[in-house]
Amino acid sequence: MSIYIDPDAVSRLRQYEMPGKLGFGRVIAPVMFRAVCQDGCWSRGELVPYTALSLDPAAKVLHYGQSCFEGLKAYRTPDDEVALFRPEKNAARMAYSAKRLCMSPVPESLFLDGVRTVALYCANLVPANSGESLYLRPFLMGTQADLTVSASASYMFYVIASPSEAYHAGNMRLWVERDDTRAAVGGTGDAKVGGNYAASLLSTGRLRERGYDQSLWLNPANRSSVDELSGMNFFAVMGEVLYTPALNGSILEGVTRASLIELARDRGYQVVEGEIHINELLKQVASGVCSEAFACGTAAIVSSISVIGDAGGSYRLSKAPGPVAQSLRQALLDIQEGRAEDRYGWMQLLGAITNI
Amino acid sequence: MSIYIDPDAVSRLRQYEMPGKLGFGRVIAPVMFRAVCQDGCWSRGELVPYTALSLDPAAKVLHYGQSCFEGLKAYRTPDDEVALFRPEKNAARMAYSAKRLCMSPVPESLFLDGVRTVALYCANLVPANSGESLYLRPFLMGTQADLTVSASASYMFYVIASPSEAYHAGNMRLWVERDDTRAAVGGTGDAKVGGNYAASLLSTGRLRERGYDQSLWLNPANRSSVDELSGMNFFAVMGEVLYTPALNGSILEGVTRASLIELARDRGYQVVEGEIHINELLKQVASGVCSEAFACGTAAIVSSISVIGDAGGSYRLSKAPGPVAQSLRQALLDIQEGRAEDRYGWMQLLGAITNI
Repeated sequence: MSIYIDPDAVSRLRQYEMPGKLGFGRVIAPVMFRAVCQDGCWSRGELVPYTALSLDPAAKVLHYGQSCFEGLKAYRTPDDEVALFRPEKNAARMAYSAKRLCMSPVPESLFLDGVRTVALYCANLVPANSGESLYLRPFLMGTQADLTVSASASYMFYVIASPSEAYHAGNMRLWVERDDTRAAVGGTGDAKVGGNYAASLLSTGRLRERGYDQSLWLNPANRSSVDELSGMNFFAVMGEVLYTPALNGSILEGVTRASLIELARDRGYQVVEGEIHINELLKQVASGVCSEAFACGTAAIVSSISVIGDAGGSYRLSKAPGPVAQSLRQALLDIQEGRAEDRYGWMQLLGAITNI
Repeated sequence: MSIYIDPDAVSRLRQYEMPGKLGFGRVIAPVMFRAVCQDGCWSRGELVPYTALSLDPAAKVLHYGQSCFEGLKAYRTPDDEVALFRPEKNAARMAYSAKRLCMSPVPESLFLDGVRTVALYCANLVPANSGESLYLRPFLMGTQADLTVSASASYMFYVIASPSEAYHAGNMRLWVERDDTRAAVGGTGDAKVGGNYAASLLSTGRLRERGYDQSLWLNPANRSSVDELSGMNFFAVMGEVLYTPALNGSILEGVTRASLIELARDRGYQVVEGEIHINELLKQVASGVCSEAFACGTAAIVSSISVIGDAGGSYRLSKAPGPVAQSLRQALLDIQEGRAEDRYGWMQLLGAITNI
């Protein structure tokens, strides 16, 4: 299906001036992609000026949490082309999230049209420094207006974008969350849905008062094995072996996680996807067997962990920032930013950055 | 603080014609109450025409699930007065839900202003037949526009209303949900937040294909004791004793539940709030020790359960519709609709229904 490009969107882009200070996810590009769905039928996608959306106050998304989203980045290559990193993985995950919440899934072609159109038209907004990017945020919500607890018959799909600096999570101080759990057994932990994030805010607030940065969530079924951080997957390094929690149904299948596993194996590391028991892990950190740990996600790519705090004490990783984290981060970023050969076929080049 | 009444809201009400067929939660009243909050400071409340709301596409509610809501009813008394049922309980619960999701709570006075103003101005829309009511839906959402996973600095509070018929859940057929759980351990199960409802839709869809109506959710910590239905609390009757799950942190503290417990005790029943093990319960249903079970909530008030289905078979309650459920429902409805003396001080009379 063709995509409608609103002439006002193009003129908004022509007039747009990038702020000097970007931050991460704070500056929003002046255009957006949108499509609507009624009873399973999707409209044509449109690129339009970024503007407030109009929602009926009884829309399901505002009451019953029918919303899911994705995050991915557009990069600028050394040849000034704009490129996307594995967008089909985000399309597939959003389809999975939609199914989990009984929402009409966004067809892969529409999802890819959306992220490509926004990235290409906003190509001049992709910042040039290494680590910077145009962060893309596709999202889907149920819009039917009635108060019955049921799946919506109508949906809106949007892609908005944020020219962003590198996301510096620094050397993170994690706190083992022993009281709350992020996701339910058989819950929505493996879907990228709003409710997971809303539920995590209280834990994050508590640990920040104690001087920590992020919760380390445990598995809801056993409350003893590590699941993930609120928005990143977890890795522990022991010698030449990388351990990361298996996809057990309650953690998100991170695109960065999957890519790092492949990269690490090709660089000679053994990667074990399995259960990481928190008490064992803390012992291994204390004894130095686990010298390094890191978290990964689209925003930060890879972030070293310096401390894991627990009621029993605070455990410092001896290698922080960790050399494995740093080298994997650089290897992935070199592919994403077009400096290294893309042996995996991960990058989708969208074309040259020219003035539109 | 004074409330602003938009003259257009009054003229919309004067012109409004009620549809002949109401249903439950489907017809929306033509006015709404709203207030906004910035950095903890609430604006004056306003009664305005019901109209689409304007949200920035990056608003936190659309991405990170910062939303919570309430449900309560305005009734018409035999003297044609409009009355609310225990609205301060809903105000307190919404404050709790807000706190759980790190949202700015709605002050009790603003919450009560909102529901009273809507109920009073919509008094002519409170239907007259027993069981019918004006269903009120207060809701709160985070509106700050940036893509960081953090609590919003700004919020919108709305009260919308729906003139509704009696909610006939009929004799419900429940299915024991053994795979999914509704809420996480230390999750948001005791808060009235969107994510809980979104997560329940898939289970509901599955069991409806099997000919059942509602999921019977088990406790996430032990997966063996009964918690509640997706939107109602659960009671089992054994002789002169009523059993209902205790407020264990993962079930919602229903206003109807609390009121029925008080009513039942005053009518000579023993009410035990504790753990109800699902396998024990099914045995007691099979043997006839448990003759009756029902669910309760604001919408349906009390609904008898006729069948509890499980992988091992289908268990029929011998008394369905149950006499205890029917008598408690009638007793509560008599208070709510002003036919019985309100010995508990539950009703708030707002004034006579006159033409505005």
